[in-house]
Amino acid sequence: MSWQSRFEAIRSNRIFEFFIMAIIMISALLVGAKTYELSSTAYQALILLDWLVTGIFVTELTIRYLADPNLKRFFSNGWNLFDTFIVTISLIPIDNTDMALVARLVRVFRVLRMISIIPELRMLLNSLIKALPRLGYVMGLMFIIFYIYAAAGSLFFEAINAELWGDIAISMLTLFRVMTMEDWTDVMYETMTVYPLSWIYYITFIFLTAFAFLNMVIGIVVNVLDEEHKKMLGEEGDEVTIEQLHDEIVQLRRLLEKKGAI
Amino acid sequence: MSWQSRFEAIRSNRIFEFFIMAIIMISALLVGAKTYELSSTAYQALILLDWLVTGIFVTELTIRYLADPNLKRFFSNGWNLFDTFIVTISLIPIDNTDMALVARLVRVFRVLRMISIIPELRMLLNSLIKALPRLGYVMGLMFIIFYIYAAAGSLFFEAINAELWGDIAISMLTLFRVMTMEDWTDVMYETMTVYPLSWIYYITFIFLTAFAFLNMVIGIVVNVLDEEHKKMLGEEGDEVTIEQLHDEIVQLRRLLEKKGAI
Amino acid sequence: MSWQSRFEAIRSNRIFEFFIMAIIMISALLVGAKTYELSSTAYQALILLDWLVTGIFVTELTIRYLADPNLKRFFSNGWNLFDTFIVTISLIPIDNTDMALVARLVRVFRVLRMISIIPELRMLLNSLIKALPRLGYVMGLMFIIFYIYAAAGSLFFEAINAELWGDIAISMLTLFRVMTMEDWTDVMYETMTVYPLSWIYYITFIFLTAFAFLNMVIGIVVNVLDEEHKKMLGEEGDEVTIEQLHDEIVQLRRLLEKKGAI
Amino acid sequence: MSWQSRFEAIRSNRIFEFFIMAIIMISALLVGAKTYELSSTAYQALILLDWLVTGIFVTELTIRYLADPNLKRFFSNGWNLFDTFIVTISLIPIDNTDMALVARLVRVFRVLRMISIIPELRMLLNSLIKALPRLGYVMGLMFIIFYIYAAAGSLFFEAINAELWGDIAISMLTLFRVMTMEDWTDVMYETMTVYPLSWIYYITFIFLTAFAFLNMVIGIVVNVLDEEHKKMLGEEGDEVTIEQLHDEIVQLRRLLEKKGAI
Repeated sequence: MSWQSRFEAIRSNRIFEFFIMAIIMISALLVGAKTYELSSTAYQALILLDWLVTGIFVTELTIRYLADPNLKRFFSNGWNLFDTFIVTISLIPIDNTDMALVARLVRVFRVLRMISIIPELRMLLNSLIKALPRLGYVMGLMFIIFYIYAAAGSLFFEAINAELWGDIAISMLTLFRVMTMEDWTDVMYETMTVYPLSWIYYITFIFLTAFAFLNMVIGIVVNVLDEEHKKMLGEEGDEVTIEQLHDEIVQLRRLLEKKGAI
Repeated sequence: MSWQSRFEAIRSNRIFEFFIMAIIMISALLVGAKTYELSSTAYQALILLDWLVTGIFVTELTIRYLADPNLKRFFSNGWNLFDTFIVTISLIPIDNTDMALVARLVRVFRVLRMISIIPELRMLLNSLIKALPRLGYVMGLMFIIFYIYAAAGSLFFEAINAELWGDIAISMLTLFRVMTMEDWTDVMYETMTVYPLSWIYYITFIFLTAFAFLNMVIGIVVNVLDEEHKKMLGEEGDEVTIEQLHDEIVQLRRLLEKKGAI
Repeated sequence: MSWQSRFEAIRSNRIFEFFIMAIIMISALLVGAKTYELSSTAYQALILLDWLVTGIFVTELTIRYLADPNLKRFFSNGWNLFDTFIVTISLIPIDNTDMALVARLVRVFRVLRMISIIPELRMLLNSLIKALPRLGYVMGLMFIIFYIYAAAGSLFFEAINAELWGDIAISMLTLFRVMTMEDWTDVMYETMTVYPLSWIYYITFIFLTAFAFLNMVIGIVVNVLDEEHKKMLGEEGDEVTIEQLHDEIVQLRRLLEKKGAI
Repeated sequence: MSWQSRFEAIRSNRIFEFFIMAIIMISALLVGAKTYELSSTAYQALILLDWLVTGIFVTELTIRYLADPNLKRFFSNGWNLFDTFIVTISLIPIDNTDMALVARLVRVFRVLRMISIIPELRMLLNSLIKALPRLGYVMGLMFIIFYIYAAAGSLFFEAINAELWGDIAISMLTLFRVMTMEDWTDVMYETMTVYPLSWIYYITFIFLTAFAFLNMVIGIVVNVLDEEHKKMLGEEGDEVTIEQLHDEIVQLRRLLEKKGAI
């Protein structure tokens, strides 16, 4: 038995899988625990546990790396790349310098390994990512609506409140706030003191974005229902179709007509 | 006629059922009435009525208990267990101690008996509960998103506002607030004074959770429509299928071919 | 030609219909105009126009009343009853007493006649009303959820803020506010100072109501789609069904078998 | 080769198309850049670039104008009219007078040319516009609901807060705010101090508008799904229908019966 197949046996072992899942959960709990104020002893324990988790992650990654017969294929998988990146960064020692914040942030992202190890979550994320492109053009249209309203808002309202309408970027953030309906009337009442008709600006914006968003959602629903429908039709592929029935009847008639001719 | 069947006759009696439903409604009204300030006399009357209702509940439960030939089956029904629990707790006398609050809370939950006695509401609740598991993985994914954002938020923003970002639990509550769009800009503007780019944190979070939520809703819609479709197909089960038609025609041809051969 | 048929001819006249529609619109504009501050002359003109509109409404109603051969049927139509009621109340003279406000309110409701006269709007309203009963049980379930949470809220939080949680009615209003996400965190943060775990109360409430609401919406969608589907099937009623095809083929075989027997 | 076909060749050239698209993007960036505070030199550069963009737009429009053999058809296209209008207004020189604001606003609308040049965005916008009429009657019904509530609100609440309920127009804006749930409880609590039952006004309004909106959305979904369904059926147009099958079988029987008669 080769080294590679031995590693593969370890990797495919259910106990090994559950062990790694438990370690990821411990890693997630460590990340959460660190946000609480801790006694010095508890903090030391956390640091120790953290190194232990990092050590196990390095070992696990090495095993999966050695178990794969094809290195190129190993790194063509996005999740493997992500795991290698996260584990490598984790190896940089934490001291209380500027890097400490980054190092802690990387430990936060280790929680994402939960998605890479549970197949159902991986599938769910993939389906979310797959849904993104079909939203592309609607997103584009919404961006144009935002851009035009932000430019006009910045042009007219900057003198009224520079914090909300200072430049086009800030204006877009303000408009995003208006779209989420969060205190949008405060923004409106302020500009209405100078431009009494500026309510038209806000109400048309809310209608346009809400309407575009609605259309987007409906587009996705129709798409998803369509795919489900096609998938269902695909499964029923062995069924007899009306076309086949038609062929049968036509053959029948030919048979009868031939006999009639005799 | 045995005792058991006599009790069963009472239990199945429509007048008895309506009487119990009226008592549950009175019980609900009592719960509501107690939240108003009352004169001493009225309060005494409420206490009296409350004991009367409790007495009737005990009697009704005893009847249902005696009416059931199989005790094990009686307690295997969740609603029976719930009723027994609620009625038993109601028997603990209310005095103005710490227990008083718990005893009053139990009387509040007696309103839930309305669901256990109206079959349509029971079915509705069951269908809600049935819908829960299929939301499981999406809930899991959303929890991971919340956890990562809460850990990062706690890491970066704790120094800015410990009340909102003190630890991972408080941060998750703050993020739930952001997801419901409730004064989320106040939270954002505060952190933007220190980290001017922190709007990225909020906007990506809103997109991710809104998007995941949307997918969840669509998932349920597709599921429900699918089930309805299958149910409808099931009802049409006696119908002639295209396969049966096909078989008929094939037999017809064989008949003709045989005759032709003669 | 009888009187009745003459009146019917007037009622069915297109010009008469458009004239009445214009009068209703003028009536609506009068209602709107009165909310502005007006010069004394303008106000006098409005009062005059108002009496003119009332006069025309009385005439129109009399014509429709006389045109109907069957008085009982005339008043069995809800819209006719509504029109009669509105016009009768309008005849009470406005003087600046307590009745003035009621009289003005009645003039507001005259705008509703717009719905009674445009058939498309009438149909839309009817379809909205038809959709109500199928929401019945979900509404019932939501009321029970509201009632229980309001009773518990009133029990625990009354001492904290009597204005929000004073009695069960006020508590239900507060909970409706929480359901619409309007400043719900202010309500929560206040109670969390006394009961630090009270966030569970709010979050479970939001989940329960949002979830129930979602189910309600999906229920309606499924229902509507189903009805549309059946309506579509109904229209295709003259179509040949698979059953009919089957019968045809069976007859064909019998024919062949008989001939084979000869 | 005629002049016209030479211009048409330029217009249809892919490089020319991409060049114009790039110019539109530069034009959009210029609009955005102007919202930032700029040094005098940078501002001069922007003005220069702006004239360059305007020049290119004039040239492009002239080419498209000359390339079209039919002038009437050229201007019957809404987008061509829009482009001509935008470019013409751009030619008015900006000096710091009152017209300056209008001139800058026109430059903002030049971003809309992005939609006119990308076919997918044009299609998306057309589909949005096509969806508008079918919302017509629901919009009408919602306007009537708004109008009646605004008139009643203005009648009762004007004395309480003239800023929110001063006249029917302001009241409708306030009601739009209530519909978006933005600080609607502040509005309600204020009127409840005078009319304690005014919560009925707000809650019925929220239910009516939310319910009407829901119906509207469902209406669109059903419509869209229906169209998709018909489109799908249209594509399957060459398929054999059950009716054709039926005809085939009937012919078969006639054939057999004739032979039986002989």
